Amino acid sequence: MQRYFPVLDWLSRYTKADFPRDLGAGLSVGILLVPQGMAYAMIAGLPPVYGLYASLFPLLVYAFFGTSRHLGIGPVAMDSLLVAAGLGILGASGPEEYILLAIALAFFVGSIQFVLGLLRMGFLVNFLSRPVISGFISAAALIIVLSQLKHLFGTNIPESNRIYELIINAFKALPDVQLFDFLIGFVGILIIVLMRRWIPRFPGILLVVVLGILSAFVFDLEARGVRLVGAIPMGLPSFSVPDLNVDLVVKLWPIALTLAMIGYLEAISIGKGIEDKSNEDRLDANQELRALGLSNMFGSFFQSYPVTASFSRSALLYDSGARSNLSGLISGAVVVVTLLFLTPVFYYLPKAVLASIIMVTVFRLIDVAYARSLWFRRRDEFFILLGTFLLTLFIGITEGILIGVLLSLLLMLHRTSNPHFAVLENIKGTDYYRNVDRFSEDQHVRADLLIVRFDDQLYFGNCSFFKKQLFKYAKEKGPALKAVILNAEPINYIDSTAAKMLYKTISKLKDEGKEFYITGAIGPLRDIIFSSNLKEVIPKTHLFVRIVEAVAFYDGKESLSPIQKKVSQQTKRPGN
Amino acid sequence: MQRYFPVLDWLSRYTKADFPRDLGAGLSVGILLVPQGMAYAMIAGLPPVYGLYASLFPLLVYAFFGTSRHLGIGPVAMDSLLVAAGLGILGASGPEEYILLAIALAFFVGSIQFVLGLLRMGFLVNFLSRPVISGFISAAALIIVLSQLKHLFGTNIPESNRIYELIINAFKALPDVQLFDFLIGFVGILIIVLMRRWIPRFPGILLVVVLGILSAFVFDLEARGVRLVGAIPMGLPSFSVPDLNVDLVVKLWPIALTLAMIGYLEAISIGKGIEDKSNEDRLDANQELRALGLSNMFGSFFQSYPVTASFSRSALLYDSGARSNLSGLISGAVVVVTLLFLTPVFYYLPKAVLASIIMVTVFRLIDVAYARSLWFRRRDEFFILLGTFLLTLFIGITEGILIGVLLSLLLMLHRTSNPHFAVLENIKGTDYYRNVDRFSEDQHVRADLLIVRFDDQLYFGNCSFFKKQLFKYAKEKGPALKAVILNAEPINYIDSTAAKMLYKTISKLKDEGKEFYITGAIGPLRDIIFSSNLKEVIPKTHLFVRIVEAVAFYDGKESLSPIQKKVSQQTKRPGN
Repeated sequence: MQRYFPVLDWLSRYTKADFPRDLGAGLSVGILLVPQGMAYAMIAGLPPVYGLYASLFPLLVYAFFGTSRHLGIGPVAMDSLLVAAGLGILGASGPEEYILLAIALAFFVGSIQFVLGLLRMGFLVNFLSRPVISGFISAAALIIVLSQLKHLFGTNIPESNRIYELIINAFKALPDVQLFDFLIGFVGILIIVLMRRWIPRFPGILLVVVLGILSAFVFDLEARGVRLVGAIPMGLPSFSVPDLNVDLVVKLWPIALTLAMIGYLEAISIGKGIEDKSNEDRLDANQELRALGLSNMFGSFFQSYPVTASFSRSALLYDSGARSNLSGLISGAVVVVTLLFLTPVFYYLPKAVLASIIMVTVFRLIDVAYARSLWFRRRDEFFILLGTFLLTLFIGITEGILIGVLLSLLLMLHRTSNPHFAVLENIKGTDYYRNVDRFSEDQHVRADLLIVRFDDQLYFGNCSFFKKQLFKYAKEKGPALKAVILNAEPINYIDSTAAKMLYKTISKLKDEGKEFYITGAIGPLRDIIFSSNLKEVIPKTHLFVRIVEAVAFYDGKESLSPIQKKVSQQTKRPGN
Repeated sequence: MQRYFPVLDWLSRYTKADFPRDLGAGLSVGILLVPQGMAYAMIAGLPPVYGLYASLFPLLVYAFFGTSRHLGIGPVAMDSLLVAAGLGILGASGPEEYILLAIALAFFVGSIQFVLGLLRMGFLVNFLSRPVISGFISAAALIIVLSQLKHLFGTNIPESNRIYELIINAFKALPDVQLFDFLIGFVGILIIVLMRRWIPRFPGILLVVVLGILSAFVFDLEARGVRLVGAIPMGLPSFSVPDLNVDLVVKLWPIALTLAMIGYLEAISIGKGIEDKSNEDRLDANQELRALGLSNMFGSFFQSYPVTASFSRSALLYDSGARSNLSGLISGAVVVVTLLFLTPVFYYLPKAVLASIIMVTVFRLIDVAYARSLWFRRRDEFFILLGTFLLTLFIGITEGILIGVLLSLLLMLHRTSNPHFAVLENIKGTDYYRNVDRFSEDQHVRADLLIVRFDDQLYFGNCSFFKKQLFKYAKEKGPALKAVILNAEPINYIDSTAAKMLYKTISKLKDEGKEFYITGAIGPLRDIIFSSNLKEVIPKTHLFVRIVEAVAFYDGKESLSPIQKKVSQQTKRPGN
């Protein structure tokens, strides 16, 4: 039960001493959540109040089902951008339809996450490699920063997800820049950046929000043309069933899948990062997936758009020492109070202030140092990063990450389809057998023996490469060759395609009068050999732990001791 | 030059003695090619004469560019089915448009193959694993057999690529079965099957064709309602430029890509199979891809639909001892003679005879034995086979193979994301360190040492699994644990994501006061360690060849000899 309802776990262990810490952390995050929520809703192309709706029910649901007390669930910049990118191309007929689409998308994303969690598919997120994530995030951050220029300039710059269109449109809008909007935004950026540098623990964002509201109210900035957040409907979000039909599923699935994976990736990597720091081990990857899924699904019934864990709010929860998921409930309470009583105050918040918050927060996500280090150390992965970055900037956000994942999988497959294949010879004065390419000057070379090592699993993707290499080196050894020894220690698996290849290869060697020995076969490999027809061409007596033992056997010098036999021939498969 | 024009190779070595063998082989294949070509064109939904057109120019082009003298190029059953499946859903307005589409498809397929060949992407075909191929071929063979029922019954059964529709339609057509058509087809099947069993080398197909033509002519079967091949336009195919526009490319790419890969796969696996038997090594995988591509491209200018190597004709070329690609030119000459002079004869060939040839040839491709052996030995791969089989039968031919490939890649990725992770302990009385799960009764267990082996490359897909396992076992060892030894022999690669994980993991162990040693690191791994920041946490003195040496070092008993040091610390990277 506790696995599926982590609330039972933390609630049963809750003590009075925990409450003050949870209260402090929950309040701090709640106060940050309100302006952030409104700002991120703007990125998603939604009215600011929907950022508050998304900051309410998802938090409550996560408090019950989540396994981390440090994850600050709610709207985040990256996912908001993905929502905008995905819904932008659907051509909604107006703001109302756009909102309904965003809510339906949240339900869809949540369902995907929940089902993947039930199927224990959390491991899939591992296939988002660091270069892909970094390239994607840097590109998305650039797009977000540029997309906020319209609020900073106080002008109408047409939306776009493509960098060149954004830049061109921004230049076209330069003559219309509103001085007051721009000044407010610029000062906002300055304050947040300088506060971060000088007093890192000071809530710069809150200060900017308060100053913005005050100055708008006092100086009647609305009359001077400054764009304010304006009237926010008062009251809690109403219940309504999200309208997700088959037609929408067909249209939305690429963006929903991307959001489900990216959202989960953000949550799980933030959660793991914090656990690393705090030396904890409570995070359950699949339960997190289910919890996020339920948060999105339930949230969508109360007008929430897709949410996940926010980096800044999670860090704040950790720094202020949250003791349990109760802190999330307290943050939710702050949002409730805001929605019930404070919306008239936020009427006066200039949109340029929200833009300044977004721009500073998001700009820091652009990671040049990592790209540079890859350039020097891993040229192939650098190009994966660059490819993802450019595709995201110029083609599209979903396409960028999907093609990035495909590229990094292809790179990995290409690597496994051409693994390292080494010819080994004896290092004089030792019983080591090592690569001739690295130690030739110290080696004793034998013409009658070919000793090779294949450094990967043998599967359909590389078994023809194995065969080609083996016969190439056998040919190089020439007619003196009498036996082949395969150091199989790195071979952790042989699939059926490769088993057939290996069977034919060994048979062919035997037809040519050459013996075939295997050394260092690990347990799973021995099981595979003894349970397939490979045992017909690899008798137990041809298995050894070390190369030196196989060579001694071939030379007729030594036979194995009982324990050596046992170690080299053990198998768990019955009937052997 | 010879690499791109293999004709220069075989022509320069050609002797007079080769000619009689080439003539014999070329004539035999040519005589088989004519009825097969017409039959396969029927599978593709084309008039029979297009099978002859496809048996002409592609052969000539392959003779110049191909690297195997034993590949019988031309129309084949599987690809013809794929053509029918791919074009069927496009809804051509009539037979003329359908023919133009098939020819445009040949050009498209050829271009894909040629470009992939130039890019040396032949290795991609390795990702079609045996279970996927077997499941796909069995399903396609079933569909082909059922699709020929209409010719065997002499009725109009609506076309379909889905098994249940085919079966339902066949049952509906039962009342209309034409007795003569059915008898002719049934006798044809009997003759071919019995001849194969009793006199394997007798050309049963030719006999059935001759008997069919004679009886149709002598008994005037056309008047009795038997469906004949009918009038075939006399003369060689005319030149015309295939009409492949952007619109078609968008519609045709899935089927074109499938055909390009399947066609190449058939050619390369037949070619390799024959080379295995004949102990040759001339086949150049990428040149074959280019040669097939050129055959399809050039062929399409002379009204050929997609072609590849035929299993039966290639076997016949090999059996009759073809000496060079000249045999292909001779087969082409047989087709030319047929087109110029013999079409009036084939007027009398009953379609039921062609159906009987197809049904027998294709039925043998259904491989139940392999599926059964997978069921007992590799349950996971069996389900890949079954999935591909069922998807191909019930969803669609292209979908079947594409999803099959994806499934087998996912299985492989799942395997690499959860590799074998073993805890090792010393086997008493030896210097072996082996898995505690297999040898616990013979082992000497130490509480202060954790020795582990990770049996795969460390990359983004499995590095969090590695970390989780390592700390799990470290926790089990308890507070007595003082050092961790990683047997890295199976780790052939560490990507940047995993390097970062490893750096953090080792740092964390060090913070806890635990030492970290690596044993058996292969050359490429040492290079990676010494060229990354991993060298900060893995000093050279912590690298060993064998576990026993690391343990001795940890115990303070022994230090390494100069050669041991050299072997364990060698790297090719400069500056180390």
